Amino acid sequence: MMKIDVLTLFPNMFSGVLNESILKKAQEKQAVTFNIVNFRQFADNKHQTVDDYPYGGGAGMVLKPQPIFDAVAHLTKECEHQPRIILLCPQGERYTQKKAEELAKENHLIFICGHYEGYDERIREHLVTDEISIGDYVLTGGELAAMVVIDSVVRLLPGVLGNEASPVLDSFSSGLLEHPHYTRPADFRGLKVPDVLLSGNHRLIEEWRQKESLRRTFLRRPDLLENYELTDQQKKWLEEFKKNER
Amino acid sequence: MMKIDVLTLFPNMFSGVLNESILKKAQEKQAVTFNIVNFRQFADNKHQTVDDYPYGGGAGMVLKPQPIFDAVAHLTKECEHQPRIILLCPQGERYTQKKAEELAKENHLIFICGHYEGYDERIREHLVTDEISIGDYVLTGGELAAMVVIDSVVRLLPGVLGNEASPVLDSFSSGLLEHPHYTRPADFRGLKVPDVLLSGNHRLIEEWRQKESLRRTFLRRPDLLENYELTDQQKKWLEEFKKNER
Repeated sequence: MMKIDVLTLFPNMFSGVLNESILKKAQEKQAVTFNIVNFRQFADNKHQTVDDYPYGGGAGMVLKPQPIFDAVAHLTKECEHQPRIILLCPQGERYTQKKAEELAKENHLIFICGHYEGYDERIREHLVTDEISIGDYVLTGGELAAMVVIDSVVRLLPGVLGNEASPVLDSFSSGLLEHPHYTRPADFRGLKVPDVLLSGNHRLIEEWRQKESLRRTFLRRPDLLENYELTDQQKKWLEEFKKNER
Repeated sequence: MMKIDVLTLFPNMFSGVLNESILKKAQEKQAVTFNIVNFRQFADNKHQTVDDYPYGGGAGMVLKPQPIFDAVAHLTKECEHQPRIILLCPQGERYTQKKAEELAKENHLIFICGHYEGYDERIREHLVTDEISIGDYVLTGGELAAMVVIDSVVRLLPGVLGNEASPVLDSFSSGLLEHPHYTRPADFRGLKVPDVLLSGNHRLIEEWRQKESLRRTFLRRPDLLENYELTDQQKKWLEEFKKNER
């Protein structure tokens, strides 16, 4: 069972997310256990302050090293396995599905959530094993970023998704974006489902899906094709898409 | 005041996040108002089903167009302003700080959260104005992605951050990653703050920060420098970093 500790000043932010949907199911199936810790309780000063002004001046407060170092020391005191200690911040490594797959193999993850921009540098340099950014945008704190990483990792744990969906078929796992999906009705207020999907011809349906997956990637995320090994058929389709563009 | 509607099958997921931290403050300051809607109530069939099997076969369920079209119609019935209707999905435009700044100028945002991979294509083509992906990884649903976008947008609304921090100084707004931060103590268990930050010389501190901001970007995210206009001083520093690498 994976163990996930989260250090945060806003533990209530996690209640809704952990008690719904896949993360709730994953706990019920004993695939994961969560421990949300308010690291303010580890502050060793009288007023339990966890942040302070930045050296050299400037706006914004900076998280002090002491409460976080001591909270992590407490959580790792009796650990059998060396945990991954993950800091969420915009300066981190850009998060990808590959990283999610890597983290899903671990036994123990500790997430440190704080002011998104202001961690004392000594936390980065001497405590954490991974700095992760979920994207090139600024959040108020690391909490939502931690939830995103947790969701993407936990759904990959054995038994969590069950038969509802296969993580193998997802976008990014294959290297391409997914093809379009349609469900009933075949005619919704005049908007129709492509004929091929109603044909019952599985070979043609599979071909259509592969082609549309490639088309969507070409149109929306051509950067994903840069390191992608195309089959001969895919090369032909790509020529066709490029011709249509002109 | 910005109006944000969220369509979801898991409204409880939002309770913790909307009632804490900056999103709570933003509501108290009347900068934003939230309306979380379970779109299952708009399903016009007896069993209130909102999804169905995909045409052409395959794993996973696909969200039907009817409940979502009708929920959006209901929410926009008496709108003065044309809202942005945002679908969260991995096939969308990659979310950036620039997009956050663009959305922060709107009056009304509607977020559609569903199975992350399975929306009927007619929702994409004929209903939404924006498809957003928060990054190249797969989530269980659009809910966490919506919360990320909401947090990044709401903190930019006038008056929300107050004097606590300036959004202008954030990473990505400047085009570079932020410089390291330090706070007290100057010596934490043998780990020391750089001397320059204790010097009181504001010119030297500012120079150190600019240099370290560039160094961090060069080391961690050289892709951000591709479209960045360097000053002469920055060009010199960059040469120095490159020399040190060899």
